[in-house]
Amino acid sequence: MNVRVLVTGGTFDKEYDELRGTLSFTRTHVPEMLKLGRCRLRATVATLMMKDSLFMTAADRRRILAACRRAPESRLVVTHGTDTMAETAAVLGRGLKDKTVVLTGAMRPYRFGSSDGLFNLGSALSFAQALPPGVYVAMNGLCFPWDDVRKDRRRGVFARKIRR
Amino acid sequence: MNVRVLVTGGTFDKEYDELRGTLSFTRTHVPEMLKLGRCRLRATVATLMMKDSLFMTAADRRRILAACRRAPESRLVVTHGTDTMAETAAVLGRGLKDKTVVLTGAMRPYRFGSSDGLFNLGSALSFAQALPPGVYVAMNGLCFPWDDVRKDRRRGVFARKIRR
Amino acid sequence: MNVRVLVTGGTFDKEYDELRGTLSFTRTHVPEMLKLGRCRLRATVATLMMKDSLFMTAADRRRILAACRRAPESRLVVTHGTDTMAETAAVLGRGLKDKTVVLTGAMRPYRFGSSDGLFNLGSALSFAQALPPGVYVAMNGLCFPWDDVRKDRRRGVFARKIRR
Amino acid sequence: MNVRVLVTGGTFDKEYDELRGTLSFTRTHVPEMLKLGRCRLRATVATLMMKDSLFMTAADRRRILAACRRAPESRLVVTHGTDTMAETAAVLGRGLKDKTVVLTGAMRPYRFGSSDGLFNLGSALSFAQALPPGVYVAMNGLCFPWDDVRKDRRRGVFARKIRR
Repeated sequence: MNVRVLVTGGTFDKEYDELRGTLSFTRTHVPEMLKLGRCRLRATVATLMMKDSLFMTAADRRRILAACRRAPESRLVVTHGTDTMAETAAVLGRGLKDKTVVLTGAMRPYRFGSSDGLFNLGSALSFAQALPPGVYVAMNGLCFPWDDVRKDRRRGVFARKIRR
Repeated sequence: MNVRVLVTGGTFDKEYDELRGTLSFTRTHVPEMLKLGRCRLRATVATLMMKDSLFMTAADRRRILAACRRAPESRLVVTHGTDTMAETAAVLGRGLKDKTVVLTGAMRPYRFGSSDGLFNLGSALSFAQALPPGVYVAMNGLCFPWDDVRKDRRRGVFARKIRR
Repeated sequence: MNVRVLVTGGTFDKEYDELRGTLSFTRTHVPEMLKLGRCRLRATVATLMMKDSLFMTAADRRRILAACRRAPESRLVVTHGTDTMAETAAVLGRGLKDKTVVLTGAMRPYRFGSSDGLFNLGSALSFAQALPPGVYVAMNGLCFPWDDVRKDRRRGVFARKIRR
Repeated sequence: MNVRVLVTGGTFDKEYDELRGTLSFTRTHVPEMLKLGRCRLRATVATLMMKDSLFMTAADRRRILAACRRAPESRLVVTHGTDTMAETAAVLGRGLKDKTVVLTGAMRPYRFGSSDGLFNLGSALSFAQALPPGVYVAMNGLCFPWDDVRKDRRRGVFARKIRR
């Protein structure tokens, strides 16, 4: 089974710029994380963009959708900033069928230690292999369908839209 | 959905004893790892034993099987040393039905940094939620059925029994 | 021998705010770092302020000078942002006598891993114990007198004012 | 100022062998640690041996003494296992004059995270630059003369021989 990992940026890949003392993006850490996880799944990593998801535009989301459609793989993981992950999931959910796409991200940069990134990547790759076609968000050890997920910004966690 | 995590020891939970300069077990790190993963899945962690899997006996495996049967949850993750993980998986696979049980472990202790443990735990919890009843081994980002998995000791990875 | 550690902020103590996705200060990590270093030197840690040194004012520097004078200890370490560490060192150098004061900091936050902070703290505490009265900057494994040190911002290192 | 770092092994450089599940030595981590500390001191690293200090013989200690004498530098740091660090310090203390030699080590391997190694290395390099000729042990943020130091094995710390 082949899985494609589409990188779009987000906290996952944020770095600390020592000379400027600010947060920045350089390159994705996904290949390093797959190596750390001793991952032997055939995974192709492709960087689409490196954006804080607060600055992601409708055009960016169309690019992500097009990349999912164009991918030869039918199973994909999309790394994404958490702030607008649910919005992108909705664009993909409405625009895709016959593919399993799992969005994931991190609350703390992988490179800063104590990150949830490695846990989330392991989780997303597994849901991407096991779930039927559909678009999902994998965060906090859970998997949400694209039309029933929101980020609870106050608590920094993902939840269903309506408490049942 | 509720998942039970049964802890049996293994490299996952090995520690470094500073006073003796040796490897040892103290307590499981699974709750700390779930916290690091910002995990919000309802997971009950129960420590069954703390053993290097090279020293695991037939009686130990019967205890693990009994604990899986007795658990109120129908979905379980078992943390286990990698050396005899496939043997325990076989005992569980023959003895259980109607439960989804995923065994996982680590090649490097979680507490030593650069560990695959957090990735594997995220992966195992996800497979445990998504897969139908059966016994599986989740390692290296992959999921193997209990009757078609072996540890390739020379390379330190899990593989199918026969190359196809 | 007793040493006082005066905390003023700087990269050393920067944290990542998960909910806002920004850099911030909460509390100092110096006590945790002393514990990690298994430090048994009698060290009293006092937080004077938590400031990015780019925003440090003349009044802030007078407060640091006053705190050094007021301290019962004759040996002090001052943690400080690197950007204006040399300026503060000059204020202390001109205003103090009969005390050994060593300023130090970090290029990368301690909490982000891969930090030089622990190395620098070990270094500063040692120079503070071993050097005669005077004001010094301890960075990059070196010790500079307050009147012959500058930060080379382009390279992110400390150097003597004039190449000899 | 030039400093020579003589590597002799010890917990400092212990690694975890993933395939065997045991502690082992491969190569020294001192150059990586100096890089992490952004160290710009001219330091030459030379590996003399890679030994658990419990297995260090009288012949090994003579080799270390000879290496200290032979070194062109008059200031040296010796990394060493903690168990017999005081014994080696005594051999060097009796055999050397006109050189400043500082022995240091770690209670936890550098590669396992949460190590005191980086703190101790920063400390030892600083004492080596600042102290007059003599042989010292730098551990726990303190510096002991070779003839008044012992390891308190029960507590895992260094102390003076007699409480004063």
